[in-house]
Amino acid sequence: MAKLDDYRFYVQQVLERYGQLKPAYGDLERQLLFDPTRDHYQLVTVGWQQQQRVYGCVVHVDIKDGQIWIQHDTTETGVANDLVALGVPKADIVLAFHAPYKRPHTGFGVGKEQLGQHAA
Amino acid sequence: MAKLDDYRFYVQQVLERYGQLKPAYGDLERQLLFDPTRDHYQLVTVGWQQQQRVYGCVVHVDIKDGQIWIQHDTTETGVANDLVALGVPKADIVLAFHAPYKRPHTGFGVGKEQLGQHAA
Repeated sequence: MAKLDDYRFYVQQVLERYGQLKPAYGDLERQLLFDPTRDHYQLVTVGWQQQQRVYGCVVHVDIKDGQIWIQHDTTETGVANDLVALGVPKADIVLAFHAPYKRPHTGFGVGKEQLGQHAA
Repeated sequence: MAKLDDYRFYVQQVLERYGQLKPAYGDLERQLLFDPTRDHYQLVTVGWQQQQRVYGCVVHVDIKDGQIWIQHDTTETGVANDLVALGVPKADIVLAFHAPYKRPHTGFGVGKEQLGQHAA
């Protein structure tokens, strides 16, 4: 559990840092949604740019089965790399936006429990 | 505050109900993200459909300044209508996905504090 508490702290820390990067244009708000009960963590952009509605997820990370699942990531650096820099082993990070059959080739974790469902 | 506690309860109730509607196809998960600290509430679809990644927000609702702000809504019924059916006055619901200058014509709330920023 201590490991998972560390992971929760790291994930929130990384998302808070991206949340502080304000878009240079438009009337845009960055919102953090942290749900530690369900272990879902998200950063969203909401607002307006030249009368156009802007709504989009920047990063979405889950913690499940002892691993950190990157469900969605639009950052340049890659949240996975930020987490590795904080000391999280690559095997404990799943790039969930890659299909399960590709994950063994990412150098990151595989997320075993879903492998059967998607294997070709 | 009692009013806001009611609104928080209604919003979570409505989102939980939509969360139980499982997509009929694909290998899709519906995730609830409730962050009562920041008063952000969201329902997201995550998963795979025919080897294609699916990631998208179904509904995103905030509570701020005593009103319920519908930031994003892909439901057919409209979460605003669900909330009205639960007894929330229309004036306390802001269709935030409509530009502020259009909001006076929606029959719902206006979200006064942002009107100045977007008025033409």
